[in-house]
Amino acid sequence: MTQNIYDNPAFFAGYSELLRSREGLAGAPEWPTLRALLPDLAGRRVVDLGCGFGWFCRFAREAGAAEVLGLDVSQNMLARARETTADPAIAYRQADLERLDLPPAAFDLVYSSLVLHYIEGLAGLLAGVRGALAPGGRFVFSIEHPLYTAPGNPEWIDGTWPLDRYLEEGPRTTDWLAKGVVKQHRTIATYLNALIAAGFTILRVEEWGPSDAQITAHPDWASERQRPPFLLVSAGLPADL
Amino acid sequence: MTQNIYDNPAFFAGYSELLRSREGLAGAPEWPTLRALLPDLAGRRVVDLGCGFGWFCRFAREAGAAEVLGLDVSQNMLARARETTADPAIAYRQADLERLDLPPAAFDLVYSSLVLHYIEGLAGLLAGVRGALAPGGRFVFSIEHPLYTAPGNPEWIDGTWPLDRYLEEGPRTTDWLAKGVVKQHRTIATYLNALIAAGFTILRVEEWGPSDAQITAHPDWASERQRPPFLLVSAGLPADL
Repeated sequence: MTQNIYDNPAFFAGYSELLRSREGLAGAPEWPTLRALLPDLAGRRVVDLGCGFGWFCRFAREAGAAEVLGLDVSQNMLARARETTADPAIAYRQADLERLDLPPAAFDLVYSSLVLHYIEGLAGLLAGVRGALAPGGRFVFSIEHPLYTAPGNPEWIDGTWPLDRYLEEGPRTTDWLAKGVVKQHRTIATYLNALIAAGFTILRVEEWGPSDAQITAHPDWASERQRPPFLLVSAGLPADL
Repeated sequence: MTQNIYDNPAFFAGYSELLRSREGLAGAPEWPTLRALLPDLAGRRVVDLGCGFGWFCRFAREAGAAEVLGLDVSQNMLARARETTADPAIAYRQADLERLDLPPAAFDLVYSSLVLHYIEGLAGLLAGVRGALAPGGRFVFSIEHPLYTAPGNPEWIDGTWPLDRYLEEGPRTTDWLAKGVVKQHRTIATYLNALIAAGFTILRVEEWGPSDAQITAHPDWASERQRPPFLLVSAGLPADL
């Protein structure tokens, strides 16, 4: 079963202080690239897997979505999402993302930001996403890039990233905000082939690194161009499903 | 214009001594994985981009292909391919792979092994491949993995691969068999998005590393599991094109 680190008090406290937690989507440097992968949201029914504080759910409604369902494993996150949302077309619900219990073909977009690399049972999650999407539906997600999750010692050495264990899939335990955070390393090929096996067509793949303008504003981000920190994918179901 | 390193005498002499040159497909450790991506070849019309000594062209005919066209930029390679082939259904021709001049929709499979990372004009090559394929046709290829081509200093350090420059696409000059061999580094995302933009559906992606059995037979290959050396892709055109 996937670790629920977000309800660890130290992790939750640290996570709440991140730029992307305090400022929402505007505080996430990869957001403009992820946003560009989204279909037009007007009138669409949207699910957010791992909705956290609800930033994307509120964005989707502002962009015209008809209804938005935010799912998260963390009661702490959901409580804060509910506190900061006053919109009857947004619902938040606790859920085990590996065993989605959603009405069939009831959504047009499933979105997930930086969650899938925590999930042990990827095939189960993808089967749930596929079942919840209507024909022509989209699945747009970001994850920590496999180059970021692979190494045994993920720390820069003289400006280079000491890659190893790339083909060795499985858990990686790191100390980030709290001790013993468990991520699941998978290769890019594994993610893409699992999507294809679940019936999706790959529409676009982005290996995100900071733009020149972002590096000018944040010179310490330059190293992220040596090894992209995020992988973004847009996948779709056939319209004539 | 893409460098034609294969007609450099030192490179050609060194290349001719490689296991994959002397033993053909059986001497290429990634061949079983690449072969598994191929469609049934019985009765099919096949093109090999960068056919070299003709090993794959002869394999395709043994597997039942109706006709096989081997294209290569190197006169040296083509001369040896012709010397070792006695099959009127196999033709070899010199070609600029960035500007393919093939009859439209005349082939069922385009194959290419370890060639595209030398090609400067990838979009031109893909447009040529797409135009040459019939509806339902496949493009199956291998390249040096972008993790292999990216680094400024592609040499193991204490068992780790010093990754840098991954998002910096463009030429990389290395000394391999001869001085000043120029490869074109592109990201995985760039390859996949270029295929999608050219009208292909991604069918399968493999990041190849040696199997346990291969490492038992060749213990010095074990490091290749830390950083896959080859990327293999199967892509297809819609049958109702």
